[in-house]
Amino acid sequence: MEAALSHLITQIKPVSPAWLARAKERLDSLTKPRGSLGRLEELAARYVGIREELLPPMNKKRVVVFAADHGVVAEGVSAYPPEVTYQMVYNFLQGGAAINVLARHVEAEVEVVDIGVNHDFADNIGLIRSKVAYGSRNLAQEPALSREEAVRAVWVGVERAEEAVSEGVDALAAGDMGIGNTTPATALAAVFTGRPVAAVTGRGTGIDDVALRRKVGVINRALSLHRPDPHDPLGALAAVGGLEIAGIAGLILAAAAARRPVLLDGLIATAGALVAARLAPAVIDYLIAAHRSVEPGHQIMLDTLGLSPLVNLQMHLGEGTGAVLGLGLLEAGVRVYREMATFNEAGVSEV
Amino acid sequence: MEAALSHLITQIKPVSPAWLARAKERLDSLTKPRGSLGRLEELAARYVGIREELLPPMNKKRVVVFAADHGVVAEGVSAYPPEVTYQMVYNFLQGGAAINVLARHVEAEVEVVDIGVNHDFADNIGLIRSKVAYGSRNLAQEPALSREEAVRAVWVGVERAEEAVSEGVDALAAGDMGIGNTTPATALAAVFTGRPVAAVTGRGTGIDDVALRRKVGVINRALSLHRPDPHDPLGALAAVGGLEIAGIAGLILAAAAARRPVLLDGLIATAGALVAARLAPAVIDYLIAAHRSVEPGHQIMLDTLGLSPLVNLQMHLGEGTGAVLGLGLLEAGVRVYREMATFNEAGVSEV
Repeated sequence: MEAALSHLITQIKPVSPAWLARAKERLDSLTKPRGSLGRLEELAARYVGIREELLPPMNKKRVVVFAADHGVVAEGVSAYPPEVTYQMVYNFLQGGAAINVLARHVEAEVEVVDIGVNHDFADNIGLIRSKVAYGSRNLAQEPALSREEAVRAVWVGVERAEEAVSEGVDALAAGDMGIGNTTPATALAAVFTGRPVAAVTGRGTGIDDVALRRKVGVINRALSLHRPDPHDPLGALAAVGGLEIAGIAGLILAAAAARRPVLLDGLIATAGALVAARLAPAVIDYLIAAHRSVEPGHQIMLDTLGLSPLVNLQMHLGEGTGAVLGLGLLEAGVRVYREMATFNEAGVSEV
Repeated sequence: MEAALSHLITQIKPVSPAWLARAKERLDSLTKPRGSLGRLEELAARYVGIREELLPPMNKKRVVVFAADHGVVAEGVSAYPPEVTYQMVYNFLQGGAAINVLARHVEAEVEVVDIGVNHDFADNIGLIRSKVAYGSRNLAQEPALSREEAVRAVWVGVERAEEAVSEGVDALAAGDMGIGNTTPATALAAVFTGRPVAAVTGRGTGIDDVALRRKVGVINRALSLHRPDPHDPLGALAAVGGLEIAGIAGLILAAAAARRPVLLDGLIATAGALVAARLAPAVIDYLIAAHRSVEPGHQIMLDTLGLSPLVNLQMHLGEGTGAVLGLGLLEAGVRVYREMATFNEAGVSEV
């Protein structure tokens, strides 16, 4: 399966400046001062470049929420008990979670993927069943995943993107659910940004100072134990990552190969993006940082990727909640680009 | 009419902390870590406080775009010729402008008000006809408006808000069109923030360095000539303001009196907000700063009002374009508040 992944990676091409220029030309013909819609114009141009079409459609948007558990919760790194992961999966499937509401608001579909939840779900509940394992192992004591598990989980994400594209999805958002998952995401942040663990570690869903110190200690211990190599992203992902992070990395790789943008959410999705970008740097052209999370590591990770978040609304929920707000802004930019009248069409004097 | 305005102002009451607390209680019962939706939660609580209902509706949103011309364009302060004001009004009515596209995107209605355009519009084109004058006079040489014109224009805004509320509008956004209008807005910014003209003056739709220096000179001359008094907001509005700015001030006053939020756009709308807040400080509780404009005076004006913009997307178009994006975010917050499941309902373990 690593060979299939290598093949997929060869299909990812950078976005061409010629398409960005073509988009800018149209944007400058529309009835507004040049550049006056700021980042909405940037999003529109980026989307045209990604799609390589002069008037690309924006009909179908989807957030893929990968859910998994984490053995590291045994170390007391989370404010919530681990059963919340599967309880929230049921909440997603019933439409009652924040991601459901915000996805309805921006008219995006929600797909929920069991990539590694420590629970046997009931049948026929609308869940995508792609369980690689019943959660990761405790990364403070042993590798979170085997390399083979990590690659299988990446491939689950590849399949989600490929199915989305075959179903006509124009833009994807990456979401996550997994009690404890800011710990592996932060460990990967330290590996790929090279910053000290304490500088990138935050409170996740709301731990206190004592638990925060414990979390930093756990991550430092894991890094000493496994010595993950940033130049072996799959190895690092296996050592200190998690199944939903792997799924997000795969989603990004396959979306980029199929020329579709992926809106990043916060810490977890951006950890997946770091893995994907180490495997295939050109994926960065397909990534849009939707928001800046409250988590201190997030901005550092975005800086490493060279991405600037669209909004900072002091959010830190995960699930893809920030990413779907970004889907709404992306669509706003694309609609401006597609639907506004030109100076000629509207009979408005140009400068 | 100034007496009617004084009466309206007596009806504006601050938002009650008790309602904000009630909203927060519900927010904390929803299936998410407390406060994890950041400013979306703040918007929801604010809206509950404004409406004084535990589950207030959010069905109808409207942006009111006030259009007017400005005699000060004779001084060469704008990159665009003045006929663009009426040309853009036609563009709004045909649905081809940025505000139309973005309003469609967030499902808000667009109302276009001729409050002072230097043009006789065709009949039956869907325009609200409330022309107070064929534009303001050149504020560098004489008062822009008579006090009576300023008050009549404020009252036009009052009527737009009252009609909106009677038609079931839940949230309003303030928009503007008027070639040359960053000059009066900046003059009012200087008056009400007390900052030097050069510190609050920007490039509007895109003037060069020479025109920027000219614009600073024109505003300084006008302030020396009229010596507008910040403690007489209607006098200052008349001396160095404009008709659309007056309309926005009136919209805000009447919206606050009727307990409806107003999303502010950029420099022009915020100049109207400064006038309204000087007349009735409690209106600030009803104002939501949707975005931070590229105009350097804008953040300074927002600081004076004690408002923090929701997003910074490097926009500087006006028309209400930033404000309608804010309407979308407000609705997102209200929907989260109304539609999310509680921990109890979803059977999710609480901390």
